[in-house]
Amino acid sequence: MEELKTVIDEILRSISLTVSKLDLEEVNKLIDLLIEAKRSDKKIMVIGAGRSGLVGRAFAMRLMHLNFNVHVVGETITPAVERDDILLAISGSGTTTVIVTAARIAKKVGAKIVAITSHRNSPLGKQADHTVIVRGRTKLAKDRDYFSRQILGVHEPLAPLGTVFEVASTVFLDSLVTVLMRRLGKTEKDLRARHATIE
Amino acid sequence: MEELKTVIDEILRSISLTVSKLDLEEVNKLIDLLIEAKRSDKKIMVIGAGRSGLVGRAFAMRLMHLNFNVHVVGETITPAVERDDILLAISGSGTTTVIVTAARIAKKVGAKIVAITSHRNSPLGKQADHTVIVRGRTKLAKDRDYFSRQILGVHEPLAPLGTVFEVASTVFLDSLVTVLMRRLGKTEKDLRARHATIE
Amino acid sequence: MEELKTVIDEILRSISLTVSKLDLEEVNKLIDLLIEAKRSDKKIMVIGAGRSGLVGRAFAMRLMHLNFNVHVVGETITPAVERDDILLAISGSGTTTVIVTAARIAKKVGAKIVAITSHRNSPLGKQADHTVIVRGRTKLAKDRDYFSRQILGVHEPLAPLGTVFEVASTVFLDSLVTVLMRRLGKTEKDLRARHATIE
Amino acid sequence: MEELKTVIDEILRSISLTVSKLDLEEVNKLIDLLIEAKRSDKKIMVIGAGRSGLVGRAFAMRLMHLNFNVHVVGETITPAVERDDILLAISGSGTTTVIVTAARIAKKVGAKIVAITSHRNSPLGKQADHTVIVRGRTKLAKDRDYFSRQILGVHEPLAPLGTVFEVASTVFLDSLVTVLMRRLGKTEKDLRARHATIE
Repeated sequence: MEELKTVIDEILRSISLTVSKLDLEEVNKLIDLLIEAKRSDKKIMVIGAGRSGLVGRAFAMRLMHLNFNVHVVGETITPAVERDDILLAISGSGTTTVIVTAARIAKKVGAKIVAITSHRNSPLGKQADHTVIVRGRTKLAKDRDYFSRQILGVHEPLAPLGTVFEVASTVFLDSLVTVLMRRLGKTEKDLRARHATIE
Repeated sequence: MEELKTVIDEILRSISLTVSKLDLEEVNKLIDLLIEAKRSDKKIMVIGAGRSGLVGRAFAMRLMHLNFNVHVVGETITPAVERDDILLAISGSGTTTVIVTAARIAKKVGAKIVAITSHRNSPLGKQADHTVIVRGRTKLAKDRDYFSRQILGVHEPLAPLGTVFEVASTVFLDSLVTVLMRRLGKTEKDLRARHATIE
Repeated sequence: MEELKTVIDEILRSISLTVSKLDLEEVNKLIDLLIEAKRSDKKIMVIGAGRSGLVGRAFAMRLMHLNFNVHVVGETITPAVERDDILLAISGSGTTTVIVTAARIAKKVGAKIVAITSHRNSPLGKQADHTVIVRGRTKLAKDRDYFSRQILGVHEPLAPLGTVFEVASTVFLDSLVTVLMRRLGKTEKDLRARHATIE
Repeated sequence: MEELKTVIDEILRSISLTVSKLDLEEVNKLIDLLIEAKRSDKKIMVIGAGRSGLVGRAFAMRLMHLNFNVHVVGETITPAVERDDILLAISGSGTTTVIVTAARIAKKVGAKIVAITSHRNSPLGKQADHTVIVRGRTKLAKDRDYFSRQILGVHEPLAPLGTVFEVASTVFLDSLVTVLMRRLGKTEKDLRARHATIE
């Protein structure tokens, strides 16, 4: 079972490497956009497919705890996107069809598209008003291959498909939550008061 | 394929019979509770398991279109239930564990429990501050058996499990939407403006 | 509150009228396709947006009770659509972007597209290998207007947006469940054995 | 914005510390249980509330990619839990009502309860046939406070509520996926073939 430890170390190293490459200017602008949306009571509509969708929901839940006017596209009570709302779209490849389509619809009504993706020049990235690059597998391939070859004698990356993008985005967005708490003067107690009680 | 027509007729007859037995006093009080919640900006939290949960979501979506402060228990951005919120619980049997548990939690914080169920004396019915009885299978067994025996020579009811309760509740709640529209002076155009556009 | 009764009657009449116009040949072919998919262990992938999505899920749940290999597009454990799978797409207008896009993707891999829609010549209808027409509002406008004008003195249809399509589709698909039960020799007891117990 | 970097470092350090304390015997037994379930075609039913539910879904999606017979409790096509199925329950506190209730129901029919929790002696932990301890906030409080005090001059933990448990569980379960791939001889290509294509 040393194998598990090796894999965990590799995933942690990949995440660590990925988040270390975050552009703080990009992140700062995202924070400003979110806080401005809250101040002017605009909606933040979160969208993602598959596991990226789960990353988005985890972030949306915290935004709700922080009293943002946040919705997840596709859930029951999600209303129409409107002018100056933010569509926060999460897609490693930036090519996921439903995400790209959603961005086009949202853009048409004057919403701002914010993309969290590995690829600035993807169909999603190109439509975005603002992009935060979270490097996923492709961009880190050399580093990852290094670790995997050295340690386990395999040529395949240890974490399959979008794993690195998804976990790194989770860590990034959870860190953003803490920064938002501080900016908004919220404590853990405030979050707890909003936390779902029927569960 | 006359079989399909026979089954459809039977289901329509069951629904028709069920909704004809609705107690208008009970319905009227439900309408008052919903409108009062809207007026005082209290939350309406909808809960149901399985197909009853889908009935609840269909209603919740329309309440959102009508600008109610509505949430579906278990979805991403659902916050804590609070004093004077309404927990609208849908359960034919009134015994579904998660629903009964949710009602107990909600009651403890001072929320009002509104039950849509076939059984006033069920665990859910007993906890409810207000109940609207939608007769399901059990209560209509004689009538249903009548139709099924006469027409298709079987002793089993045509619509399995909770079907009659679920479809009758759908028709009832969709009718309620129309009544609420009139009470609130909303037109179809108002609903359309709130209707999700990313889909 | 006679209002509620009037609205219920109107909705029931609209549904009754809609289902009476179902083409039994179309329905029969749908049944054959579903049973053939079960026999050859192909997947049935159900998709719909908003309230049509809820209609689809209610049907998918019963198909699961009947031991079909059924999935709902967008849920966690939904796998890739493959050749000869069925994409069962529900959209009154037949224009919903994500549904039309899904149909295009599914068609490309050789899946069969089955549409439940009011519009044979819609983008969805045109892509479909088989279509069951469930007349919704547009097609019944004259009849519905008749009832509404006569009884309540309004010119607006009583049931807003897609309501008639959605409830009529629910009744239609629930009737189909009963027909499928008989074709497959399943009793209510069989369904109950598969019914989710953790709820 | 050095703040973001500090918070990210703190979260990564907490996760790293948490996963370093995983008991490899516990993990090994979990792997054996999962592989045995696959071999004997038993179901794995994943359950979690709130953000722990999202962690569970991310893992369930990968188990589906690996061809396990996996379901998420509460989704549309989830069938009855049966004897020898595994209920994989994720709850940091081990006290979440719906999870504890689900475990009781599952245990009654002879399913095995596997808990991922921070608290072995919680109501969930006590019911479990097997537990993997993922230390969350409570257990690491001293360490976390250390980092937060030293660096940012606050006494509050940087990552609110269940964040550390949730992200550490994500990393742990994603590492498990890689280990399972190797045990089952699956490559990334195999996973990709099962990955949802309609999205």
